[in-house]
Amino acid sequence: MTRIAIVGVAGRMGRTLVNAVQQDAGATLAGGIVEPGSSLVGADIGELAGVGKLGMAAVDSLEAIADDVDVLIDFTNPTTTLANLAFCAEHGKRIVIGTTGLKDDELAELDGFGDRVPMVFAPNMSVGVNLTLKLLETAAKALGDEGYDIEVSEAHHRHKVDAPSGTALKMGEVIAESLGRTLKEHGVFAREGQCGPRTDKEIGFATVRAGDIVGEHTVMFATEGERIEITHKASSRMTFAKGAVRAARWVADQDNGRYSMQDVLGL
Amino acid sequence: MTRIAIVGVAGRMGRTLVNAVQQDAGATLAGGIVEPGSSLVGADIGELAGVGKLGMAAVDSLEAIADDVDVLIDFTNPTTTLANLAFCAEHGKRIVIGTTGLKDDELAELDGFGDRVPMVFAPNMSVGVNLTLKLLETAAKALGDEGYDIEVSEAHHRHKVDAPSGTALKMGEVIAESLGRTLKEHGVFAREGQCGPRTDKEIGFATVRAGDIVGEHTVMFATEGERIEITHKASSRMTFAKGAVRAARWVADQDNGRYSMQDVLGL
Amino acid sequence: MTRIAIVGVAGRMGRTLVNAVQQDAGATLAGGIVEPGSSLVGADIGELAGVGKLGMAAVDSLEAIADDVDVLIDFTNPTTTLANLAFCAEHGKRIVIGTTGLKDDELAELDGFGDRVPMVFAPNMSVGVNLTLKLLETAAKALGDEGYDIEVSEAHHRHKVDAPSGTALKMGEVIAESLGRTLKEHGVFAREGQCGPRTDKEIGFATVRAGDIVGEHTVMFATEGERIEITHKASSRMTFAKGAVRAARWVADQDNGRYSMQDVLGL
Amino acid sequence: MTRIAIVGVAGRMGRTLVNAVQQDAGATLAGGIVEPGSSLVGADIGELAGVGKLGMAAVDSLEAIADDVDVLIDFTNPTTTLANLAFCAEHGKRIVIGTTGLKDDELAELDGFGDRVPMVFAPNMSVGVNLTLKLLETAAKALGDEGYDIEVSEAHHRHKVDAPSGTALKMGEVIAESLGRTLKEHGVFAREGQCGPRTDKEIGFATVRAGDIVGEHTVMFATEGERIEITHKASSRMTFAKGAVRAARWVADQDNGRYSMQDVLGL
Repeated sequence: MTRIAIVGVAGRMGRTLVNAVQQDAGATLAGGIVEPGSSLVGADIGELAGVGKLGMAAVDSLEAIADDVDVLIDFTNPTTTLANLAFCAEHGKRIVIGTTGLKDDELAELDGFGDRVPMVFAPNMSVGVNLTLKLLETAAKALGDEGYDIEVSEAHHRHKVDAPSGTALKMGEVIAESLGRTLKEHGVFAREGQCGPRTDKEIGFATVRAGDIVGEHTVMFATEGERIEITHKASSRMTFAKGAVRAARWVADQDNGRYSMQDVLGL
Repeated sequence: MTRIAIVGVAGRMGRTLVNAVQQDAGATLAGGIVEPGSSLVGADIGELAGVGKLGMAAVDSLEAIADDVDVLIDFTNPTTTLANLAFCAEHGKRIVIGTTGLKDDELAELDGFGDRVPMVFAPNMSVGVNLTLKLLETAAKALGDEGYDIEVSEAHHRHKVDAPSGTALKMGEVIAESLGRTLKEHGVFAREGQCGPRTDKEIGFATVRAGDIVGEHTVMFATEGERIEITHKASSRMTFAKGAVRAARWVADQDNGRYSMQDVLGL
Repeated sequence: MTRIAIVGVAGRMGRTLVNAVQQDAGATLAGGIVEPGSSLVGADIGELAGVGKLGMAAVDSLEAIADDVDVLIDFTNPTTTLANLAFCAEHGKRIVIGTTGLKDDELAELDGFGDRVPMVFAPNMSVGVNLTLKLLETAAKALGDEGYDIEVSEAHHRHKVDAPSGTALKMGEVIAESLGRTLKEHGVFAREGQCGPRTDKEIGFATVRAGDIVGEHTVMFATEGERIEITHKASSRMTFAKGAVRAARWVADQDNGRYSMQDVLGL
Repeated sequence: MTRIAIVGVAGRMGRTLVNAVQQDAGATLAGGIVEPGSSLVGADIGELAGVGKLGMAAVDSLEAIADDVDVLIDFTNPTTTLANLAFCAEHGKRIVIGTTGLKDDELAELDGFGDRVPMVFAPNMSVGVNLTLKLLETAAKALGDEGYDIEVSEAHHRHKVDAPSGTALKMGEVIAESLGRTLKEHGVFAREGQCGPRTDKEIGFATVRAGDIVGEHTVMFATEGERIEITHKASSRMTFAKGAVRAARWVADQDNGRYSMQDVLGL
């Protein structure tokens, strides 16, 4: 059983992580950390997460629970994450990092811990998204030069401000790279009016914005006679939390090093 | 049994119409017309259509088969269609017209036959597309002002040169009209980059071009908690031929007048 | 502005209803009722619902807030609902009832209030599901006897114990009734092995059980050349709460009588 | 350029193969064979296939065109196929075989040519179906033991007599094998009535029969928070013809041996 502590346990992602650990037969909850001075110090972690009383109080210091923990899960901010990496290096702990927004110098500092800490660092921990990227690479290599047209469609909720989504672009990039193309040259992000017939090598994108859609992505490979479609649909942030817990279980058995979700999934 | 003659029986649409009449239990094939002087005069209509010998030779004149026919089906060109309308007026026949590209004066001339000939005239005879337009009107009126975001997605083969498709635009127009909106003001035909959150009243369009897709259209009405999607998928031009045969059966019982597919379907 | 009180405000549906009222520009929250003796009497309704402090305390008696309320929304149990109907009759209030599980005598008693109380009573308040039923009726009448095969597919989460879903069966019944068929005679609920070709009049059902799917239903009408698909996807219980609030706004202007969601939606 | 001869060029598959060769930039048509004594000996192969005159007459003997051909494509019957294998062994030719219905002794005889003829033998030549099987194996290994529910849905035309389709069963078998399960133990082919909650390891199947659907298969891997769906849609028999031509180009460079489509695709 991997003993996991959640950093930032009072936030929305923190509470979802508590749920995900509770559901995982191979993991057990070893602690939850809140910001120093928070009014929630001492609150029951289970009640915070809406899973019922667990008899485990939130603390504001990793030192307090160091002996009970194998792996930290950290979806916080760059400063906190780098401090936690230092803690792991000192105490021989491991860490799964979903923190985003690191600047180049912070990324370099994070990278520097790679020879002292076993860590998984991934901007998107969804197992499904990471698997989908692998499937797309396989499909693109098998089909891409054989007359298959490639189109990426995505749908998100009405509040999303950019298009296409970062994940759609990532999918397009993985495909383009597999085929020796680039999105800069071959990406088609809008079609309107008399745009002429499709070219062979373009990678098209289509965007839908509506309602409360958490995130749906479909990549179509189509030719005369058939289509292959690879789709990922996220329905809640549990997909990220479950990926993080899976990464925590996996990194518990690894040597020092910085790993990705592709490593975790063995892809 | 409605006795049907196919004008332009040697063309791709004509041959598909022969198939559709053969499949329809309420209709029977009464003749097939080719252009005067065609080398196909006398050819067996069934063999032309690939359904096996029917023992019925293609003719180059409507007069030759006038006594055997109740309704003409005509997907030809404006000049031929107007001549056929005159024939119908003179001989008391009826007609289903799928011809496109009529200019304003030709349309006026066609309209002038409305008090002498029972005719169905429709640019798209697909029963499904016409039904879908009705369903969209019903849905838009029930949902449109209640916080439902509306998005029209369409996919067509790689050879299509314009976007969105005419049918997608027609769908959008029906919705807009039902809600007192216009596509000019509320249509969003491309989203790219930092386009900001969705506005309440916009009607979005997304376009896919790939492979051999005959034509797929989906309209989504989405709000927090639910989505309704209304989809039409064409798989062959049989959808147009079958609609025409259905219109022929229906117009056999109508008074003089110009009718639409909405009339035929009772929508 | 319709002033709405939520009965059973501390339950999951009650809290979702608070969210839905807060989001509705034409409705305002007028009170929340919990069971007499509950420890939550006096708790802030907004905090209960997770929408932040609203300065409105939960009460355990309708009398306490009678002057402030136009319409009750009640998703509780038959006994409570019938008591609330008596309250409405006495105080000239209106009610939206989503309570299920009423026995025949309870239904009769509820019905008896129809001449004294304007009420909406519906087992499924989802606007989308009710609209979908109307769309299916329209489609079935237009297509059903013209060679279109009809198939109902549904998907739900892994915990659902029955198949097909009640909503799928309701969809099938609406279609069957529109076509003079019955599910008893024409419903096909499983296909396995050498089951032979499809018959013309059968209405097929297909069931998927997986993951956390809240509820997805698609009805396909397919013939040679085309398909029409009408789909409803629920993503959260907000769909039921929003339907109830819409019903509350609508019933605020109605005479005494028992109404359905079809009435509310003007279908 | 691989020079290809089509055996059985007058049949529906033969004519589709002519189309596929004509569309392939790396292949050229080297001949078409009809049955000895056929009235179509001497007919133009292009006119037979509906692609216009090619100036190449159908012949009734492979010997007549042996010098012009690198690879045969053969979708005929076991007797003809075995005779053609003998011809290939004698003349140093290669062959792509899509013939089905071979009995055990015929399969053994076919296998015996493996050390004298480079051949591709596959019951389903669709590139997309074969790729999909590979993607399913990858996905199953990454997800299968991590709480993902697996469901296979398929849709075919109204004339199909068995359920689920052979391809759906093959997909289920590939998944089951990847996970140490069997369809015999874990396959669930029908759900009806009070069937209880889903079990963890079952692989569900759902079947739709409607209209003219050529063949659609979707495998869903779903857990709390996300779904991955892998879909194949066939729209015409061109998918099989194009796979065969791709196999012919590939086998032109291989040593003696019996190969599968997985080999051709490098999966």
